[in-house]
Amino acid sequence: MQRYGTVAIVGVGLIGGSIGMAIRARGLADRVIGIGRDTDRLDEARGLGAIDEGTTDPEGALDGAEVVVVCTPTDRIAADVCRFAASSHPDVLITDVGSTKRRIVEAVEADDRARGVFVAAHPLAGSERRGAAAARSDLLDGRVCVLTPTDRTPIDRRDRAARFWSSIGGRVVMLDPDAHDSALARTSHLPHVAAAALALSVPAGTIELAAGAYRDGTRVAASDPDLWVAIFRENPEHLIAALDEYRRHLDRFREALTDDDPGELRSLWSRARALRSRFREPGSR
Amino acid sequence: MQRYGTVAIVGVGLIGGSIGMAIRARGLADRVIGIGRDTDRLDEARGLGAIDEGTTDPEGALDGAEVVVVCTPTDRIAADVCRFAASSHPDVLITDVGSTKRRIVEAVEADDRARGVFVAAHPLAGSERRGAAAARSDLLDGRVCVLTPTDRTPIDRRDRAARFWSSIGGRVVMLDPDAHDSALARTSHLPHVAAAALALSVPAGTIELAAGAYRDGTRVAASDPDLWVAIFRENPEHLIAALDEYRRHLDRFREALTDDDPGELRSLWSRARALRSRFREPGSR
Repeated sequence: MQRYGTVAIVGVGLIGGSIGMAIRARGLADRVIGIGRDTDRLDEARGLGAIDEGTTDPEGALDGAEVVVVCTPTDRIAADVCRFAASSHPDVLITDVGSTKRRIVEAVEADDRARGVFVAAHPLAGSERRGAAAARSDLLDGRVCVLTPTDRTPIDRRDRAARFWSSIGGRVVMLDPDAHDSALARTSHLPHVAAAALALSVPAGTIELAAGAYRDGTRVAASDPDLWVAIFRENPEHLIAALDEYRRHLDRFREALTDDDPGELRSLWSRARALRSRFREPGSR
Repeated sequence: MQRYGTVAIVGVGLIGGSIGMAIRARGLADRVIGIGRDTDRLDEARGLGAIDEGTTDPEGALDGAEVVVVCTPTDRIAADVCRFAASSHPDVLITDVGSTKRRIVEAVEADDRARGVFVAAHPLAGSERRGAAAARSDLLDGRVCVLTPTDRTPIDRRDRAARFWSSIGGRVVMLDPDAHDSALARTSHLPHVAAAALALSVPAGTIELAAGAYRDGTRVAASDPDLWVAIFRENPEHLIAALDEYRRHLDRFREALTDDDPGELRSLWSRARALRSRFREPGSR
């Protein structure tokens, strides 16, 4: 089994906290250090068992870390990776959890030092809840974790990153950064926009008449605005393309309704249902 | 407590079966008779405890029934109500569970005998699953049940219908049939079309990269095509209006993405989130 001396987690919210708990629950490291800007949050994460120690002073803490996991908001990740690469041991592995990958990878690869130690990652696990209080040691169990190394990523770092993410329960999948962003625009970013637009389409006075379809269809609209605005802005081209395809499907439904065409309505619905039946819950794969 | 001699349930699937279980669990009737066209399904419903007896011969069974609950597909309800009104005791109460109301009410009110005994109803409970095997005695507990009496509905039947639906756990709300269809177009029919269009937007090859937002956003696309095509076709005007409003919200997101306008993205998201926060799970009200 993989074992580490020190793992540093930058940003101990839902994902960072869950990674810390997974490492500690599996006994994978001597020490898990949480790095953050807010002492109260670090204390909370320590109280919840997500980290062994917390600090607001990364330079001291990073010195001995073998692995640094950057779990800050998507639009801060590239800068944080470069900053931490500059103050880490040259043998460090730095990885992240950002929901978009192309822009992060491009920004990091422009930095000579950071490029040699970084492997971009995206564990597909989350929740509309936020903060270490929602963290769970099994959040990543059986979840796909996409790694997006490029031909500039050192092979040894790529392999170390794959071992790290596997060791805490992830099912590692390798993709090109842009292919990741294109796929996630459809599987994750589009469903978020669709949920928010759905919430906006149901006036407050009629929500009492909503049931399961509304509940599930709008669930992720309860997510944090800062987090999602940052993700959307990191992936606009693919998200716009996904939205345009989504609207074409909505238009087909609208046309079939206008024409009162049961064959077309049934055909659209049956194709949707067949695609949906291919989805398997993480963990049940 | 309200008590009945015989209650007849026409169509013992998910909803009909759950109504039968609720009546039997609460001891509200001496006898619950299931009426259907398929002997195997009736036997299954009896085996599951949803009904006391099943029959494919409604005329004999309806003779002594005080309450008849029509749980057939939306596009068959009006004809079934008229047919059963003709062969029932004159003091009978007939009610239904259709997901749309205006067309059903108009069709029933064109029939002199049926008009005097019918109170249209829509219990807001369902599932993407179908059939008596998915039925539960608590499916309606705390769920809104919309009744849509008109000025042609006898007051005593309206009050009896309200008592009936309350007695099996529903929270009765009275609405005009067209107001019901307009509200449900947004709270239920639109979320179903949105879910199906979302499922159509995620190609089979990328479903492996889907997680919670996709799972919830597409859940109801697994529902039965016949059931939903019938519902859509009973409520096209309101559903098209709801789709048009939905597309306007999607267009606002698209424009804010094109303009890279974080203020507008945040504003859209925050309004969606505030609306969504007003939703309360049935039972937690």
